[in-house]
Amino acid sequence: MPLGEFELIDRFFRSCGAARGDVRLSVGDDAALIDCPAGRDLVAAIDTLVEGVHFPAGSPAASIGHRALAVNLSDMAAMGAEPAWALLALTLPRADECWLAEFSRGLDALARSFGVAIVGGDTTSGPLTASLQILGTVERGTALTRAGGSAGDVLFVSGTPGDAAAGLGIEQARLSVADAEAARELAERFLFPAPRVALGRRLRGLASACIDVSDGLLGDAGKLARASGCGAELHYDQLPVSRALTLAVGDERARELALTGGDDYELLFSVPAGRVDALLAALPPEEWRYARIGVLRSEPGAVVVRGGSVIDFSHRGFDHFH
Amino acid sequence: MPLGEFELIDRFFRSCGAARGDVRLSVGDDAALIDCPAGRDLVAAIDTLVEGVHFPAGSPAASIGHRALAVNLSDMAAMGAEPAWALLALTLPRADECWLAEFSRGLDALARSFGVAIVGGDTTSGPLTASLQILGTVERGTALTRAGGSAGDVLFVSGTPGDAAAGLGIEQARLSVADAEAARELAERFLFPAPRVALGRRLRGLASACIDVSDGLLGDAGKLARASGCGAELHYDQLPVSRALTLAVGDERARELALTGGDDYELLFSVPAGRVDALLAALPPEEWRYARIGVLRSEPGAVVVRGGSVIDFSHRGFDHFH
Repeated sequence: MPLGEFELIDRFFRSCGAARGDVRLSVGDDAALIDCPAGRDLVAAIDTLVEGVHFPAGSPAASIGHRALAVNLSDMAAMGAEPAWALLALTLPRADECWLAEFSRGLDALARSFGVAIVGGDTTSGPLTASLQILGTVERGTALTRAGGSAGDVLFVSGTPGDAAAGLGIEQARLSVADAEAARELAERFLFPAPRVALGRRLRGLASACIDVSDGLLGDAGKLARASGCGAELHYDQLPVSRALTLAVGDERARELALTGGDDYELLFSVPAGRVDALLAALPPEEWRYARIGVLRSEPGAVVVRGGSVIDFSHRGFDHFH
Repeated sequence: MPLGEFELIDRFFRSCGAARGDVRLSVGDDAALIDCPAGRDLVAAIDTLVEGVHFPAGSPAASIGHRALAVNLSDMAAMGAEPAWALLALTLPRADECWLAEFSRGLDALARSFGVAIVGGDTTSGPLTASLQILGTVERGTALTRAGGSAGDVLFVSGTPGDAAAGLGIEQARLSVADAEAARELAERFLFPAPRVALGRRLRGLASACIDVSDGLLGDAGKLARASGCGAELHYDQLPVSRALTLAVGDERARELALTGGDDYELLFSVPAGRVDALLAALPPEEWRYARIGVLRSEPGAVVVRGGSVIDFSHRGFDHFH
């Protein structure tokens, strides 16, 4: 890309996101300078979206900008952290002004709504890739991790997993849904996921372990369980499937997608049995939108139980619609 | 990539870099937890290397691992900051165990030598791209920026710019150098740049402005000057060209490469005339390897002066060897 195009790109990101008083120096120098608050731990994560891997070629640019930040906000949510600052590394085949305007609009809107300042970035020419680095803070020693669960802890998940996987299928025209309203709702869940930052922050002191569900509920339950030195048992009949998803693919496939679909960006968390009442009182499930779905157990591995028997999901392929 | 390959990759980075007592939680959870020291500003930068853009296809993997961190350490150097933690977003077409071993060896060696812990990462499949996010700290309010210079300040540059551009030419077989030792030395300067972190930290309180030279000395001098609200005048005869570069391309082209070649990762800094003696006393130029090359002036723009006249570089193309 000629230098002028880089300057064009810089213009789009220079005033992107929230304005924060703790940013001493933002986009435009060799690095950003941040006033990190005392008494808090710094929380850092990085996640990359690659065209053709994490989103279909031709996805709306506003969605790509939104998702580049959302997937990282979801990591902050899983730690119970307050997101604050982000840096963007954007690789583009060419500088298309309309595309950039839409991309930065999607990024800017989500960043502002979570009080995140975009403090730095790097734009390069190459295959379309957005790597976003997020920084947040959490009161010292109170972060949620994947490792705090114990056998007997109750498992909960936020939202309605599986919707985003169906939404991606719709976006890729691999899934056809007769109900237009349901199709639109599912596509939105893929294109503009809502990271559960507020829920994550409220779970500190209540949940024993937490993970964000990005690679499929069953697999991510296995990761949380393994990090906690135990196994996970998910209850098929308790899976919270959305009305739109059931309309779109039927109840059986809806539950399969809830277990194995990706891109949900919901929170899966464990709560010691003795703290469940405190959880339900502090965070009413109808208001905070989460459901009990299983339990941690001492046997390793993650299994799904239906009517007292374990269901085998190992034969299911990667592509849910072919 | 199958899941097993991601696990392979994770293994390579789980114990990469220095061990630091201030890392509360490293690679393997949704985010890293860092104990950020009180009384210091947090310094953050991100830089991306794309195959075929920032390094030739087939570059040694150890060099790519080294450079992914080096270009970011150079940003820390330019701020006078102490690098501390890094996160890596690596996109790979496939998980090749030998390639990964070499890449992580290059990254690990440089990270350890600068005390940098690799606290997180994300590996995805796609075109070869390495985005590295670096975090460091600097005593509150003492960071160097591009913006502090004034007309009359003296300009200095570290090392011998231009070597890396010739080294890249050699690596791409666009430049043939008869002297094998000079060729090896120049190629090393491209493949394994040495970020000037120690120099940057010592320049706090001495330099008025600083920038890392990554896109060519003349262009980067223009950026520093513009951020400081002035212009820059570089003196052709003062440019520090290496013996290897002069041997390789002759004195005229060596100076042209010193001015317009990229990938140097040296520091360009301005020092108020009244502090130059203090600089020379505190940091002897022979030991710290930097040279006086010009001056900031009130007229905007960056120019090169030879024998009292301004030389025009605008006709020179991007490719220095064709």
